[in-house]
Amino acid sequence: MGGKARHFKWEVEYMHWSPDGEEGVVMGINGQFPGPTIRARAGDTIHVELTNRLHTEGVVIHWHGIRQIGTPWADGTASISQCAINPGETFLYRFKVDKAGTYFYHGHYGMQRSAGLYGSLIVDVAEGEKEIFQYDGEFNILLSDWWHKGSHEQEVDLSSNPMRWIGEPQTLLINGRGQFNCSLAAHVSNSSASPCKLRGNEQYAPHILRVHPNKTYRLRIASTTALASLNLAIGILALKGSPTPPPTHHRRIFLLNTQNFIDGHTKWAINNASLVLPATPHLGSIKYGLNAAFNRKKPSRSVQARLRRDEARGKSELHDGSGVYMLRFNTTVDVILQNANALRANVSEIHPWHLHGHDFWVLGYGEGKFTEKEEAKFNLKNPPLRNTAVIFPFGWTALRFVADNPGVWAFHCHIEPHLHMGMGVVFAEGVRRLGRIPNEALGCGLTGKMLMNNLHN
Amino acid sequence: MGGKARHFKWEVEYMHWSPDGEEGVVMGINGQFPGPTIRARAGDTIHVELTNRLHTEGVVIHWHGIRQIGTPWADGTASISQCAINPGETFLYRFKVDKAGTYFYHGHYGMQRSAGLYGSLIVDVAEGEKEIFQYDGEFNILLSDWWHKGSHEQEVDLSSNPMRWIGEPQTLLINGRGQFNCSLAAHVSNSSASPCKLRGNEQYAPHILRVHPNKTYRLRIASTTALASLNLAIGILALKGSPTPPPTHHRRIFLLNTQNFIDGHTKWAINNASLVLPATPHLGSIKYGLNAAFNRKKPSRSVQARLRRDEARGKSELHDGSGVYMLRFNTTVDVILQNANALRANVSEIHPWHLHGHDFWVLGYGEGKFTEKEEAKFNLKNPPLRNTAVIFPFGWTALRFVADNPGVWAFHCHIEPHLHMGMGVVFAEGVRRLGRIPNEALGCGLTGKMLMNNLHN
Repeated sequence: MGGKARHFKWEVEYMHWSPDGEEGVVMGINGQFPGPTIRARAGDTIHVELTNRLHTEGVVIHWHGIRQIGTPWADGTASISQCAINPGETFLYRFKVDKAGTYFYHGHYGMQRSAGLYGSLIVDVAEGEKEIFQYDGEFNILLSDWWHKGSHEQEVDLSSNPMRWIGEPQTLLINGRGQFNCSLAAHVSNSSASPCKLRGNEQYAPHILRVHPNKTYRLRIASTTALASLNLAIGILALKGSPTPPPTHHRRIFLLNTQNFIDGHTKWAINNASLVLPATPHLGSIKYGLNAAFNRKKPSRSVQARLRRDEARGKSELHDGSGVYMLRFNTTVDVILQNANALRANVSEIHPWHLHGHDFWVLGYGEGKFTEKEEAKFNLKNPPLRNTAVIFPFGWTALRFVADNPGVWAFHCHIEPHLHMGMGVVFAEGVRRLGRIPNEALGCGLTGKMLMNNLHN
Repeated sequence: MGGKARHFKWEVEYMHWSPDGEEGVVMGINGQFPGPTIRARAGDTIHVELTNRLHTEGVVIHWHGIRQIGTPWADGTASISQCAINPGETFLYRFKVDKAGTYFYHGHYGMQRSAGLYGSLIVDVAEGEKEIFQYDGEFNILLSDWWHKGSHEQEVDLSSNPMRWIGEPQTLLINGRGQFNCSLAAHVSNSSASPCKLRGNEQYAPHILRVHPNKTYRLRIASTTALASLNLAIGILALKGSPTPPPTHHRRIFLLNTQNFIDGHTKWAINNASLVLPATPHLGSIKYGLNAAFNRKKPSRSVQARLRRDEARGKSELHDGSGVYMLRFNTTVDVILQNANALRANVSEIHPWHLHGHDFWVLGYGEGKFTEKEEAKFNLKNPPLRNTAVIFPFGWTALRFVADNPGVWAFHCHIEPHLHMGMGVVFAEGVRRLGRIPNEALGCGLTGKMLMNNLHN
């Protein structure tokens, strides 16, 4: 085994860029947009020394799909797993990539993903092991969406009273490139002034996949879209040899997804709590028992009362919360995500829920309200193993995972504006089993205070 | 004496606002733009509990004109006197206002002043003392300038290669109100669609000063403009009873103001060093002798060589630097600011230089190169006492101050884009005399690390 150490030095900064022909400002890494692709082999350890070259903003990077076993402080979720990296400072992300696959990374602070902070992370099989698929070449396709309005203004729009919806993206990007204001017809236009007459060296010129006849290619596709739901339908490929889930669960958590107002601000909520991220990252506050660091009001576990309340529309009482669920270490947890009506009558939205620190099995999904009898239909034989699963409008989705990774892990809708408006919860498990958390991850809020006052141990 | 404690709780956040009829995003305090006016009496102690409600940005507030005697950590200069306040965190600015006058406050991190983070700070004479001026009423006028392009994008423009100049402001604001796209003629237009036909309750409706005939009014005027030089010419009012300067100086510092490129980026520089702010605030790094915290390369003191170099245009070698000048405590320091040609041929710009932590005497100013014989013409009898003085194109300005306030103090061009491009230096004096600096001001960079590792004392 062993594996290699792969070292990267990255600097994050804003820069002018034309992702779709209209110039804007993107968050780039080492002058690139999207950021550099990391390529490694299963078993390797990635070292990314990330320096923040922004003028006033903190930054973090989440390694989407990497379970961070034993290194929860490297998960890159500001306020949950670490303090945001301050301007001018450097943080070392050091973590093992244990499973081959097509992953990606992205900002996880404010709406920095929408600002363009993302890139690909590809893990090949371990040295000496053989790919189960045979192919002659491969292409990496990273999908994203792009707005002409800057991400800071989008944040203000979403947080304002009344909320202003940001609307659909202006452009969908493939590997950071798209064309705004171009139709297919424009391509055959004779006008030399056509904005779609590209020389090929533009920042937004299409990424061309060059193939040879009669060869087989692997497409590695990942979507880091902030809003757009780009479903690539090739059915569910349940890979043979995937592990099967434990046959029973120890705990079942119902999570009702609703939308409502708090003081006039539009919010998404889970069991009536709309996630607000605290100044002190949960990983440190839970490890050190700093009870003042977040709202410890327990999220309600009974979905039934909430559903009734939701039915009597407009009467549900949301509150801001930290939404932390303490999971007993090594137990099997079922999560039933229950969709509901959003604020507009007869509208329920689709939500891709993403779990940090784990893969989960998708045991089933269905329409309407989940009832106990759906359980008989759960697929316990060969359910797909994923880190993200969709909950359909007015439907439910049932997931199972084992709480075997000591740390604090975000579980949230992956639509950036929805998370911004509170659509997430936090799972904590086995935190006391963790050894020393690097100070660099804790130098803010109450953990920073505690460490500076030398009050620990 | 004694004086009152005056308490304020402020929250800083972005919000939609129409300073000039075109809606944009401003940085407001408690939902107000400009921020609330602080009114106090000489001898009072101001307590501002500042909570950062921004999503990803740090924040600080500088109290412009307040000398912060004994409280250098409350001066509100990120990277110099304190760590920026992280999102969700609260910092207590506690300081004494010892002299009556018309002051203001503003952001001092990145270009947050340009984003609208400012307000008025008015100090009346101490309880029981008498104003030397007699008047029936007074008006407070805070002048500022406003761009339709957001301050984040302005930062990217100024830092890009090649630099993109932000241009003149779209609108000048009086107490946060102005009209874009209105001419005087439009006021008498009959068209009801005129954008200048105001009902009076618009956010940008003019601030009306209501006066009675035959009364005397005091106008309190302050300019927090980011760029625009709004000279209100009423000559130099040398107030009788102002203290006179020490007759001689212990040290003279020449500061040559130039503009040049560093790696293609346009920069302003002082003695060829362009100020780059470090991740660790100077106040802490100097106090604790953390020599790695900033570039200790001494700024050159000889202006002659620089001037010769400058004359051979294009050959001056700029470098990024911390520009820290260590001043012996309680000595009298003369600063000769020498202007020079900017990058464009035959152009030299005006620069309002602002000193933190002190007032200074303006001993003289003139055209061309300063030479020793100008010294004979210095006004040592009744020079004006100021915290800001202008250096005219191709001219020089001579200042004198006493380094009697233990701390680390910014001295910089008050034009926000110029400071962003490096136009400043840092003075440090008597830092070892300071008692304990609050941890809250030091929880970042190497001081944060030191405190968390308990390596001090």
